[in-house]
Amino acid sequence: MPGFIDYLPLTQWFKHYHRDDFASDLVAGIVVGVLLIPQGMAYAFLAGLPPQFGLYGAIIPLLIYALLGSSRSLAVGPVAITSLMVGSTIADTSASGLADPATVAINLSLLVGLILLMLRCLQLGSIVNFMSHSVISGFTSAAALLIAVSQIRHLTGLDIPNGGFITDSFGYLLSNLNELNSTALMLGILGLVTLWLVKEKLIVLLRNSPLPSWLVQPICRAGPMFAMIIGITTVASLGLDQGQQVAIVGVIPEGLPSISGFHVDLALWQTLITPALLIALIGYLESVSVGTTLASRDRERIEPNKELVALGAANLGAAFSGTYPVAGGFGRSMVNHASGARTTIASAISALMVALTVSFFTPLFFYLPKAILGAVIIMAVLPLINIRAFTDSWKFNKADALTLLSTFVFVLALGVELGILSGIAISFLLLLYRSSQPHIAVVGRVGNSQHFRNVERHEVTTNKHVLAIRVDESLYFANTRFVEDFIRAQCTSHREVVHVVLLCNAVNFIDASALESLENLTAQLASEGITLHLAEVKGPVMDKLKGTHFLQQLSPGQVFFTADDAMCALEEKRGVIID
Amino acid sequence: MPGFIDYLPLTQWFKHYHRDDFASDLVAGIVVGVLLIPQGMAYAFLAGLPPQFGLYGAIIPLLIYALLGSSRSLAVGPVAITSLMVGSTIADTSASGLADPATVAINLSLLVGLILLMLRCLQLGSIVNFMSHSVISGFTSAAALLIAVSQIRHLTGLDIPNGGFITDSFGYLLSNLNELNSTALMLGILGLVTLWLVKEKLIVLLRNSPLPSWLVQPICRAGPMFAMIIGITTVASLGLDQGQQVAIVGVIPEGLPSISGFHVDLALWQTLITPALLIALIGYLESVSVGTTLASRDRERIEPNKELVALGAANLGAAFSGTYPVAGGFGRSMVNHASGARTTIASAISALMVALTVSFFTPLFFYLPKAILGAVIIMAVLPLINIRAFTDSWKFNKADALTLLSTFVFVLALGVELGILSGIAISFLLLLYRSSQPHIAVVGRVGNSQHFRNVERHEVTTNKHVLAIRVDESLYFANTRFVEDFIRAQCTSHREVVHVVLLCNAVNFIDASALESLENLTAQLASEGITLHLAEVKGPVMDKLKGTHFLQQLSPGQVFFTADDAMCALEEKRGVIID
Repeated sequence: MPGFIDYLPLTQWFKHYHRDDFASDLVAGIVVGVLLIPQGMAYAFLAGLPPQFGLYGAIIPLLIYALLGSSRSLAVGPVAITSLMVGSTIADTSASGLADPATVAINLSLLVGLILLMLRCLQLGSIVNFMSHSVISGFTSAAALLIAVSQIRHLTGLDIPNGGFITDSFGYLLSNLNELNSTALMLGILGLVTLWLVKEKLIVLLRNSPLPSWLVQPICRAGPMFAMIIGITTVASLGLDQGQQVAIVGVIPEGLPSISGFHVDLALWQTLITPALLIALIGYLESVSVGTTLASRDRERIEPNKELVALGAANLGAAFSGTYPVAGGFGRSMVNHASGARTTIASAISALMVALTVSFFTPLFFYLPKAILGAVIIMAVLPLINIRAFTDSWKFNKADALTLLSTFVFVLALGVELGILSGIAISFLLLLYRSSQPHIAVVGRVGNSQHFRNVERHEVTTNKHVLAIRVDESLYFANTRFVEDFIRAQCTSHREVVHVVLLCNAVNFIDASALESLENLTAQLASEGITLHLAEVKGPVMDKLKGTHFLQQLSPGQVFFTADDAMCALEEKRGVIID
Repeated sequence: MPGFIDYLPLTQWFKHYHRDDFASDLVAGIVVGVLLIPQGMAYAFLAGLPPQFGLYGAIIPLLIYALLGSSRSLAVGPVAITSLMVGSTIADTSASGLADPATVAINLSLLVGLILLMLRCLQLGSIVNFMSHSVISGFTSAAALLIAVSQIRHLTGLDIPNGGFITDSFGYLLSNLNELNSTALMLGILGLVTLWLVKEKLIVLLRNSPLPSWLVQPICRAGPMFAMIIGITTVASLGLDQGQQVAIVGVIPEGLPSISGFHVDLALWQTLITPALLIALIGYLESVSVGTTLASRDRERIEPNKELVALGAANLGAAFSGTYPVAGGFGRSMVNHASGARTTIASAISALMVALTVSFFTPLFFYLPKAILGAVIIMAVLPLINIRAFTDSWKFNKADALTLLSTFVFVLALGVELGILSGIAISFLLLLYRSSQPHIAVVGRVGNSQHFRNVERHEVTTNKHVLAIRVDESLYFANTRFVEDFIRAQCTSHREVVHVVLLCNAVNFIDASALESLENLTAQLASEGITLHLAEVKGPVMDKLKGTHFLQQLSPGQVFFTADDAMCALEEKRGVIID
């Protein structure tokens, strides 16, 4: 099957693969693996699943992505935001008693995989473009905040109820402060401090040390592993697990996930299809965004279609590993790239490390306190809360800022699923609202040139008998009445006008509502002794108009090639050059 | 209060009101009144209410509109489509046992009135523009079909269940043919034939007769009244009401509606708010459309804001008359205008006729068979089923045709409320889809002119080092990736290009997603030794860009005033004139 072999990006890269490429991939793979083990377990908790689920999602899906993926350094596996979304879906479905968490997780992976492959087959990958940057940005910040707040339960040992508004969590916290588990809190703070020290201080220290830089980078990325080791040794040596002083991870089943079949339940799928679609889209979007960013740093491009296939297959791999959906994560991909990953071999090495861990080393995590995992999650998601995105977009475009803010608020108030859907709806409505009140300008000639510009912005000459009006928007149902009213008002206030030229250089299409409106306008102006003309009509628009009776109805009005042609012809007809 | 007096359109018209104006108004008012009495009763049945509700809605609301309305010939009152919508709302609310039909009707009128006044106060009247002609057209055809089919029960005497898919009605009809009431059917057919004869044949006959034309018109409009008289005399003379041979209207309470207060139930309002909003919008839209059409025949204009107030007040009047929402109807307004209505005095005369009827003549309608009312409704709505609207829009714009067809299907399948909402959603999505794949053209110079056009459509000259690309759409989240990909692909296939000029004359705005994409594109092209420039950027867009760091990032790329400026400057720089 040479076609299939050619399809694999990996085989292309292998043609120039050298020994030092492998050395780079090996280091990056190990660094990511060291990060992946604590993050995988922590994200599984976030999704409401036992810790091994996070590890299972970091083996087969990674190997599949290594084979099919078009990004050299995207690190696939469990990621924070989709873990949160899975967690909220599991909470909803468990509440209704429809299925146990593991079944929901597996079915979500299966659906996400199928949806991504289906999007590829139907050429619908571009559907993700319908989520604007502002929606994504608001969603990400809100999700990160939700995730961070959800970890307070692990850091305080308080049984803060899941779900509800974010202030409910703080309310519960404040009214139950007396039950706070100070041991858990101390461990959590220890974790946070360790993570912060390694990330912010250790790197400065080591850079000034004689250590070679290829060693400094990996060490400073291993913060979560250090925090885990410190947490485990503290709990084990002080016997903090005795008498349930702190919650620990406990027994993790040893061995690789057993690849098995499963029961397909259509009633369950009906419940899961919307969350699965959102998880698929958000996961794909995050992966493609990170992949594109990293590829452009190496002056390469990723292929969105191949990514759909690779991520779709990786999620099917997750389903057959018995775990929940995966995606290309922001944080680990950055680390992978910065640690020198040259090809997806690095991902395969990470997968191998996790496989070795689940096969032989799970007993080591018995004493791992949940507070440390909470600290790992908090430090991972804090950079995702981006307030500058709001202030920046406020300066540039109020509608974007409004979309961002309302998505943020809706996600916090209504939950991830309804929140992001509301955000998308708002971005659509604001867009329509914007184009329903388009910018329209009366234009005049710039000097003796062939150019026409807004009379209110430029020094231009106009003609009192020929009015040139430029509409800066396509003509369609939402703005057609607005445009009609503007033109009529202009004709009323310019009593001597006998010709109106509508400049269509910014009109990219005309829909049926607008065509009807133009027909009415032509008739109405004709009854007042005014002739309507068009100019600078684009080819595709003109093709459409030629198929209708409009051009006959426009007569004696004409369609001129340029504004200049129109003005010269009509001014001459009046026997007036420039008044 | 001179301000208020000046506000009333009627006082303006009175300044030039002559005796022959009144004669015209009198004839038109009587003709419409004769039409209004049978239609009012028939539409009340359609709304699931007793016949007098239709008459009550034709008194006070008409007087209020006569005072406040800005259209000279709009005939307000119960109309077919809003009656259908009210009927479906009443059926839903009765099924849930929340309130009786009369209470629902009154509360709907109140809400519709308040919504219309609120839209006026919030300056949101233009919200109706968000329903495209295609949505309205598909909705109207489907609603008319639903209405016609709903009348089969009256024409057959079969108890066809309301609601359900339209084929269910036919299924019930076919499986219960043996129970068909042949007397009702004969009366229905008699009604239909009478209406058809008067409308199509009598007019030809009378036009060739010595009768004066001012008498011919009114007689030919009185079809429904003739059908009613024939129906009543047939039933009464043959005693067809004995032993329930045919369903008759029966006792209609005599006297004017009693104006009274009513209980406001917030739980009920919560259920009614969405249908009320849709009834308000559809009713307002129908009124404004008809009003605009008729006004433009007289070279006048109606004032949408005054219409909001007049219709809002008329609906409050309907609420206080104890009946259901009113609107300006298509059919009766046409008749009103054709019969010579000069001012809203005609409406006041119609109202007076209806008031006299409910005060003294309701016993005359005792024997009126429901089959005749069914025939009146069917003949009134059949012209609304417009198949040509679909074929026409299919030729011009497939997206419009698709919107129309899917609204039509959804209204039949999901009912009026969900159907129209789905239609609106589809029109939005198709619009976004269209602009997510904009037309983009590589352009070249036309001859020696300053004009640049698509290389694929025109004879133009290009320069191999300077690539000019025109995007025919605003740049925003849904199309930003598409545009970026196009430009990159062009740069890849034109290896000698060192300058790319993006012509923005059709770019009406740039959102935050697109700005980010432009920044990425600039950096990416720079890394390949290509400089990005902009040209023909519109004033409002340039203002926005000046507030960002983009123009610094673009450097050494420039923003040129025109495409000509850009090409001249960049070609000179390369030392190449035209290759």
